[in-house]
Amino acid sequence: MKVALIGLGSVGRGVAEMVIKKDLGITITGVADSRSGCMESPGIDIPVLLAKKKKTGLCGNPEISAMDIVQNADYDLLVEVSPTNALTGEPSIGYIKAALGRGKHVVTSNKGPVSLACTELRMMAQKNGVAFRYEATVAGAIPVMHVLEHGLGGNEILALYGVLNGTCNYILTRMADEGLTYEQALLEAREMGYAEADPTYDVQGIDAAIKLVILANTIWDNGVTLNDIERTGIDLLTADALRLAEEEGCTIRLIAEAIPRKNLLRVSPRIIGKNHPLVVEGTLNALTFETDMAKEITLIGRGAGSVETASAIIGDLLFIRDHYDRRA
Amino acid sequence: MKVALIGLGSVGRGVAEMVIKKDLGITITGVADSRSGCMESPGIDIPVLLAKKKKTGLCGNPEISAMDIVQNADYDLLVEVSPTNALTGEPSIGYIKAALGRGKHVVTSNKGPVSLACTELRMMAQKNGVAFRYEATVAGAIPVMHVLEHGLGGNEILALYGVLNGTCNYILTRMADEGLTYEQALLEAREMGYAEADPTYDVQGIDAAIKLVILANTIWDNGVTLNDIERTGIDLLTADALRLAEEEGCTIRLIAEAIPRKNLLRVSPRIIGKNHPLVVEGTLNALTFETDMAKEITLIGRGAGSVETASAIIGDLLFIRDHYDRRA
Repeated sequence: MKVALIGLGSVGRGVAEMVIKKDLGITITGVADSRSGCMESPGIDIPVLLAKKKKTGLCGNPEISAMDIVQNADYDLLVEVSPTNALTGEPSIGYIKAALGRGKHVVTSNKGPVSLACTELRMMAQKNGVAFRYEATVAGAIPVMHVLEHGLGGNEILALYGVLNGTCNYILTRMADEGLTYEQALLEAREMGYAEADPTYDVQGIDAAIKLVILANTIWDNGVTLNDIERTGIDLLTADALRLAEEEGCTIRLIAEAIPRKNLLRVSPRIIGKNHPLVVEGTLNALTFETDMAKEITLIGRGAGSVETASAIIGDLLFIRDHYDRRA
Repeated sequence: MKVALIGLGSVGRGVAEMVIKKDLGITITGVADSRSGCMESPGIDIPVLLAKKKKTGLCGNPEISAMDIVQNADYDLLVEVSPTNALTGEPSIGYIKAALGRGKHVVTSNKGPVSLACTELRMMAQKNGVAFRYEATVAGAIPVMHVLEHGLGGNEILALYGVLNGTCNYILTRMADEGLTYEQALLEAREMGYAEADPTYDVQGIDAAIKLVILANTIWDNGVTLNDIERTGIDLLTADALRLAEEEGCTIRLIAEAIPRKNLLRVSPRIIGKNHPLVVEGTLNALTFETDMAKEITLIGRGAGSVETASAIIGDLLFIRDHYDRRA
């Protein structure tokens, strides 16, 4: 299988390194970063390309753009892992549409396009007889989409509850364990590299809400957008609130919830019993699906990281190789 | 898709009821219990059959055996859910081989055949170009096999740790929460219907060890048998041992472990931190996979129950319908 890779940040590098390390029968024939591109139909020498990128900041020729690769390279499957734009989804949406239009499978970790155009992109893939998969957009290495699609196949999903933002979970864990204030815990999260200089996107629950949008559209195909999510962040939470919860054998977590029967779509700090499976520590993510046959199923794992995200992308890639390729 | 169903106990009934309730495009053309069988190529009227079974104890004609159905009914996929024989795997192994030999897919919840002949049956399926799936054999409704096969596709599984027996977990939970002795907790488990009159199979860790055999063969294809598992049950555990663990912020769980790098295959009571994701309550099951890319992934859910087990079987059935049928 020939793969084109758009994006060579932490995730793209993780994918490229794992494809080399593991003998997966995959050849990378096109690569683009934000300023250059490289395509070679017999296959690119990835170690050489990564060394060049490290030395010069460019992976290829500055006159070749990502869109050139998408439109002209010789590949079966596009891995789209360019930086996320949560407002417009561009330029990723354009890349994905161009690839699907060419009858190429697409795998992405990019939350922007999937949260803004999930149904449209899935329909376009179906029309073109190819796969569109996005396991890595929600909860990093946890195979949420595979579980929903196959493991729980035939189940009606009645509700979902998730800890979908590792930064918030780290801050809440530290506030509870060490009695830190929100500001102290945020500072620590920054020092650990878990929080951005501007933490708004995480601590106000926007990131978790975007993931909830992706899950809701995937499960119920209900056209939900970010504006439909009732949202409260953790930035106003006091150490006192956490202490009170702890005194009752509980703690506080930022929970994303979708409960169709209650018309509820919400991201907010919730008091939750300490024995509850969703109470995970540090930067972990967790999800519980409430279903009609399997009842509650909980999944716990790493929500971020270069190789962890590559794991989800490679899972999608191999699934397509093994289950779609012969039909394409 | 036409399905033949061998076994009409709690699991078989669950499958039959869910196939009727949900519009899955599945027609049941053969059914057998231990004393009778029924086959109708255009499809059996399942509500009528279940009513007959309830009234007479038989689902069909006493002159038609399960093997008659397997060998002669008109079906694409065999659902084998007859009672487990952990020593010989028969008569299930015979049914499964006969179906695979006819070029029919097989889905089973039956631990006997899978723990005794996993590799042989998988190879036979492959040779005949059909699927052999057994999600329901381990951890009930938790989609362990789908996660291993697809979600974690491309990952190397470095180790696994599991709470695989709900009866033991219930007993240990009650001993810890209420300070009960083992005998008191076992009595309660019997009254709740969680433990058999002869609890040996559960409390001595045999059931968990059989599931560990299935997992190890599935992941590493290493020909492990029940005799290779180092095994200690919970039946000699004292209330004092649990109390001591609790005083250290820990508890005790019956953990099945497989760690190839340490040459370890073991089922035994382990002291474990109360915040650990494997510490689940009551009859729940839980598994942690340690992998090279995704790192640790934990799955929690119901390990038993009629509809819960049917969930796993139907997941397998739909996966085959959607991903194998066109090739067969």
